[in-house]
Amino acid sequence: MSGKLTHFDETGQAHMVDVSDKEVTDRTAIAEGVVIMEPSTLALVKDGTAKKGDVLGIARLAGIMGAKKTSDLIPLCHPLPVTKVSLDLSTDDTLPGVRITATVKTSGQTGVEMEALTAVSTAALTVYDMLKAAEKGMRIEGIRLLAKTGGKSGTYEAV
Amino acid sequence: MSGKLTHFDETGQAHMVDVSDKEVTDRTAIAEGVVIMEPSTLALVKDGTAKKGDVLGIARLAGIMGAKKTSDLIPLCHPLPVTKVSLDLSTDDTLPGVRITATVKTSGQTGVEMEALTAVSTAALTVYDMLKAAEKGMRIEGIRLLAKTGGKSGTYEAV
Amino acid sequence: MSGKLTHFDETGQAHMVDVSDKEVTDRTAIAEGVVIMEPSTLALVKDGTAKKGDVLGIARLAGIMGAKKTSDLIPLCHPLPVTKVSLDLSTDDTLPGVRITATVKTSGQTGVEMEALTAVSTAALTVYDMLKAAEKGMRIEGIRLLAKTGGKSGTYEAV
Amino acid sequence: MSGKLTHFDETGQAHMVDVSDKEVTDRTAIAEGVVIMEPSTLALVKDGTAKKGDVLGIARLAGIMGAKKTSDLIPLCHPLPVTKVSLDLSTDDTLPGVRITATVKTSGQTGVEMEALTAVSTAALTVYDMLKAAEKGMRIEGIRLLAKTGGKSGTYEAV
Amino acid sequence: MSGKLTHFDETGQAHMVDVSDKEVTDRTAIAEGVVIMEPSTLALVKDGTAKKGDVLGIARLAGIMGAKKTSDLIPLCHPLPVTKVSLDLSTDDTLPGVRITATVKTSGQTGVEMEALTAVSTAALTVYDMLKAAEKGMRIEGIRLLAKTGGKSGTYEAV
Amino acid sequence: MSGKLTHFDETGQAHMVDVSDKEVTDRTAIAEGVVIMEPSTLALVKDGTAKKGDVLGIARLAGIMGAKKTSDLIPLCHPLPVTKVSLDLSTDDTLPGVRITATVKTSGQTGVEMEALTAVSTAALTVYDMLKAAEKGMRIEGIRLLAKTGGKSGTYEAV
Repeated sequence: MSGKLTHFDETGQAHMVDVSDKEVTDRTAIAEGVVIMEPSTLALVKDGTAKKGDVLGIARLAGIMGAKKTSDLIPLCHPLPVTKVSLDLSTDDTLPGVRITATVKTSGQTGVEMEALTAVSTAALTVYDMLKAAEKGMRIEGIRLLAKTGGKSGTYEAV
Repeated sequence: MSGKLTHFDETGQAHMVDVSDKEVTDRTAIAEGVVIMEPSTLALVKDGTAKKGDVLGIARLAGIMGAKKTSDLIPLCHPLPVTKVSLDLSTDDTLPGVRITATVKTSGQTGVEMEALTAVSTAALTVYDMLKAAEKGMRIEGIRLLAKTGGKSGTYEAV
Repeated sequence: MSGKLTHFDETGQAHMVDVSDKEVTDRTAIAEGVVIMEPSTLALVKDGTAKKGDVLGIARLAGIMGAKKTSDLIPLCHPLPVTKVSLDLSTDDTLPGVRITATVKTSGQTGVEMEALTAVSTAALTVYDMLKAAEKGMRIEGIRLLAKTGGKSGTYEAV
Repeated sequence: MSGKLTHFDETGQAHMVDVSDKEVTDRTAIAEGVVIMEPSTLALVKDGTAKKGDVLGIARLAGIMGAKKTSDLIPLCHPLPVTKVSLDLSTDDTLPGVRITATVKTSGQTGVEMEALTAVSTAALTVYDMLKAAEKGMRIEGIRLLAKTGGKSGTYEAV
Repeated sequence: MSGKLTHFDETGQAHMVDVSDKEVTDRTAIAEGVVIMEPSTLALVKDGTAKKGDVLGIARLAGIMGAKKTSDLIPLCHPLPVTKVSLDLSTDDTLPGVRITATVKTSGQTGVEMEALTAVSTAALTVYDMLKAAEKGMRIEGIRLLAKTGGKSGTYEAV
Repeated sequence: MSGKLTHFDETGQAHMVDVSDKEVTDRTAIAEGVVIMEPSTLALVKDGTAKKGDVLGIARLAGIMGAKKTSDLIPLCHPLPVTKVSLDLSTDDTLPGVRITATVKTSGQTGVEMEALTAVSTAALTVYDMLKAAEKGMRIEGIRLLAKTGGKSGTYEAV
């Protein structure tokens, strides 16, 4: 197992893996997720975005700030100074719900997959929090890595 | 809109809603979610749990600590001292993947739904982080509130 | 000195003063401050608020989150769970600039003056950050306590 | 607007701007501010500094620690490892009050203006907190950037 | 084991134990520890305390702030709002070194032993940090609980 | 004094020392410490490690996360992105108790001695927390730097 899962050493103990000898390269990660809700709840989001009471704007900001807390939240994650975080949140009637995409970049020795996924998760939780007075049955679905570039493992693209 | 979404005031501005006059009651929330993965990845989790390299144990701890950071992550969430956090993580061949349930309690003026959902999210992200060297295509799915008790809105149970 | 400044003990050493025997009462504090800028910079704020690019909305959120970090920032401040935080930000041509007011409430053994002042400060810093690409000469002025209620020292109102 | 305010993208959405392609250069920022108080309150500060009960020493430390929390407080601020933080706090009878100056350095892709301003703000709030038992009417005034060097926008000096 | 160690449930899984039904009582904890150093290093501390460069004052403040971070650091620790934190640091030629005592109080459902021990640890680490340019061989010794009161387990006093 | 203790400037004021001109080198630090306990308490640790209820595994994780919080805890510590953190925890009948060793690496302008010592301290506090229901008289002893490499002061090894 330890050969495959780098977060464990040869005896199976968890550690923050040594990346000292890894090259500093430009790294990007893109993640996505959705919050599924009733059409009537989604209508409140659309209404707020058009006027004030901006659910998506607040969730976007929470996602950006969440990305900066990644190494605080994920025990074995390396701290690294991200150089870009952006989130795109949009309403989607076909879900119905809110679609969230996050893009994170850094120049460093480890990737930013966890930062992108944490940004999406935090934004999704914030959407839930903002709307839970209207509907408690919302679900957060489909949080996954869409793509990454940089680093030894190279480029990944979700099928 | 402001009548429905309590996180906005009458002019649509976001605020942390006044709960000063709410009753202090015992409150519980239970949330769940899953991480879907390849059977071969799930085999690594089972192997680790049986021996060492305990993915589920680390994710459980991350979830507990994540619950304590909820009001740091969710902009309009009230800070409150939780009195219990427990997570149950188990492997499930039918997914295939890991099933996560979190239970949070407090005695206070606001509910702990967000704490339970944040615990599940943080544990799910940690499962992803621990296993991403083996599979990048994992997905976090079905994060939702299972039940809550206490407070003015009373008991809620997911259908 | 130690008789007057409660953050020092009788030998002049800093401590977090014992409030165990203080009564739990409802407490409110209101603070204000302004960010002074060029009329052309203020025009950008107004433009953004009318359309998108919402400087005031982002600063409002930063202020709310800042209030929750008060006891992290101010060394001798007691941690306490705030029950309400709201900020009002508005443009004022007579400054010219942005006027910020924060209201914080809790039910506890110490006041929330520092929480209200920290909310205003954090919002003001965020206004500066959002606009500094346009003008570096902005100034944060007049941060002060407007009023407080509750606690042994009772009601205070700024003249 | 988006052309001028770099924290917004072309559609007006807030983001943490991409600095991946910016040069790593040495960067310095100096900020200042004051806390205005009654002469009798200022006398307490002087008395404490001469003996023990060191208001200025505690505020200096709070400012240094505050600088390290900048990217936690300011939503769109890039995290960066500062390489120097120093604060100078002195009493000034002509205010009357306390004068605060902060100098921050880093070697990185973004500037440290916000770190210097946050250091001053945090120190000023701490001065207020330490002295509020004696006077609630203190005001924090004149927080501004004095100078910056490094980066694409080059050197700035306040007039 | 689970009968004895409350941080584990009946199946041996770690959890934050449920204290919802525990009584709210006044609780106090006192902890101590020492930093052992060369007489010449201790002389620097004494010199600094007499003049400026106040090692003990800075460590005291770090200890107070550390107490507030206890539930962030210790995974299964309940968050609770402390109502008093004070530290006493003194030089002791017989060690030779610095002696640290911390007293923490709260009114709550769990004790503050960990807060007192964390305050001592953080202060001791800070003493080390301040003096390590002069001596790297210092040792932190004898961190232990001196006494606690309150709660179901009642009063404890170290022998 | 200021000549010897780099955390103070020439006037004795605390500051975060300027490391801008220091070389970026690979740096390693190793620290150790022990938690002394009754043989019967140690038996609970061994029992838990063999089965579930893994005291050492939880303390290891707390130590890794604690290392990442070092610059939050130690006032004048520079923030830096660590590239490796590993902890070794083992039971030792001759103490009797738990022996903790932490190794931290970075590539930067300052050393990671404080990160290694903070990792050991946090793990030791967590061991105490996990076992305090069984024994309150445990002591944390012998926290010290074992070795460091890199930087201007070069290699250090404890005698």
